[in-house]
Amino acid sequence: MKLATARIDAAGSVATVLIDDGADISGSATVTGRVVERCDLGTLLAKSPDDLESRVSTCLRRDGAEVTLDRSDLLPVVPRPGKALCVGLNYREHIVEMGHPVPDHPTLFAKFPTALTGPSATVTVPEHLAAKADYEGELVVVIGRRLPGAAGGASEEDARAAIAGYAVGDDFSQRDWQYRTQQWLQGKNLDASSALGPWLTTGVDPVAGGAVLRTWVNGELRQEHPTADLVFPPVDLVRYISEFTTLEPGDVIFTGTPEGVGAGSGRFLRDGDVVTVSVDGLGSVETTVRSPLPLVG
Amino acid sequence: MKLATARIDAAGSVATVLIDDGADISGSATVTGRVVERCDLGTLLAKSPDDLESRVSTCLRRDGAEVTLDRSDLLPVVPRPGKALCVGLNYREHIVEMGHPVPDHPTLFAKFPTALTGPSATVTVPEHLAAKADYEGELVVVIGRRLPGAAGGASEEDARAAIAGYAVGDDFSQRDWQYRTQQWLQGKNLDASSALGPWLTTGVDPVAGGAVLRTWVNGELRQEHPTADLVFPPVDLVRYISEFTTLEPGDVIFTGTPEGVGAGSGRFLRDGDVVTVSVDGLGSVETTVRSPLPLVG
Repeated sequence: MKLATARIDAAGSVATVLIDDGADISGSATVTGRVVERCDLGTLLAKSPDDLESRVSTCLRRDGAEVTLDRSDLLPVVPRPGKALCVGLNYREHIVEMGHPVPDHPTLFAKFPTALTGPSATVTVPEHLAAKADYEGELVVVIGRRLPGAAGGASEEDARAAIAGYAVGDDFSQRDWQYRTQQWLQGKNLDASSALGPWLTTGVDPVAGGAVLRTWVNGELRQEHPTADLVFPPVDLVRYISEFTTLEPGDVIFTGTPEGVGAGSGRFLRDGDVVTVSVDGLGSVETTVRSPLPLVG
Repeated sequence: MKLATARIDAAGSVATVLIDDGADISGSATVTGRVVERCDLGTLLAKSPDDLESRVSTCLRRDGAEVTLDRSDLLPVVPRPGKALCVGLNYREHIVEMGHPVPDHPTLFAKFPTALTGPSATVTVPEHLAAKADYEGELVVVIGRRLPGAAGGASEEDARAAIAGYAVGDDFSQRDWQYRTQQWLQGKNLDASSALGPWLTTGVDPVAGGAVLRTWVNGELRQEHPTADLVFPPVDLVRYISEFTTLEPGDVIFTGTPEGVGAGSGRFLRDGDVVTVSVDGLGSVETTVRSPLPLVG
């Protein structure tokens, strides 16, 4: 099942949309689907933590209007998560690339809801944040069920059941601001910069299924790595996080990026760059960068 | 004007309450006030970013029911902020105490809404997080008006106008988890641990007014410092944050703690400890710690 959050009419009404099987955001300008409920997916998940599939069926019988969506109608799959947790260093080669030791525990920081943008968006980078603008292609976990914080963390079974499904993300970063102080937050929260989508895909296990994550800049492949190489895979992350905080429906976890970011090669994003991130089976997100720094050479 | 978020009846209905002048949470078990609107203060701020005072007047004429509140009826003054930003190192002596260099820029990290608790609360610390549980008394800024991210940050005038008022906070921390990795988030987000309240006080400027912040543990004074010693005071923090992200009504900024935390003296929190934080003119918050680690000696 593929569930997107989208604007479904000219008035900007937001709804959760069941995307038709076989829809491919990368292949065409539009996708088709049916309206599930006139609220975003985060709200829908909070309403039906234990029976998402049956609620979708019921809602489709009640509404189910067919819609044709432009890619730009798609919003962040969860527009206002209570928590957007990010993992900083989670693929071995990227850890080495960034000059850090391999950690014993996941390195976690936060992205605010204002930093998220849709899966087909333009990111406007102001001049003072533009010098080291960078991408990080990531597999994203979407939480569907409340998971209370508990000693030892949730069981593997509970952690797995709390995952509603997966999406694709770009943990957009400004490296100079990220490293201004000890804490990375201010380099990770530019308004409307981090694509999250194109939709929630349920009933899949990308890591077990051997899904590969890829990032292109202007069509040039920059990141290509199996998600199976995650130091802390999704279920382990959910278990770890649940040791110190309660996860809630609609919370998202950006699971970290593999080697190949601009900071590794010194090639940062410039005006007009198009960043595309895909994970096998989950679709892709694409952002066009508007920056005062033009492409050179 | 003092505005609290509280449960106002046995059914748990939440409302914004105008607290009576002269009410003092520390002196008695109850406070009195009048119902402004049947929503929390964060929601009220979002509804009336430019005319809080006149909206409160209008609402009081429409509702205005008198209520007597037990201290435990008070909720975090903004229960679900879109952003709870925290400043890590912002008083010179505390920076030295924690072994860090004085920074050129504010060190910022995030607290999730689930980590907040009311101004008279019990904090339950599970065993695996209890070894180095600690307090941080703080002055908290509450944002009342949307402030778009902009080059150079907001003007001093706009930043000042965006501050709805101030409250008192305890940035509850687990030091061992805080330093497990490079990023502090996992040591700052225990469920329902960080008191925020007792209410929003408007029309004051604690820093200019010479307000002193004090923290007691079981009545013993542990922190006592003028807020005027903040390296980055409230208006400067708002201006800096607005350089990279949009602030929204209901967002809160924990401005950092002075010297005197448990990590400085090696005296961490144990079962039954009562932590009280006050800022002159803003009232106080108090948490009782429930921990598997008993007091010794």
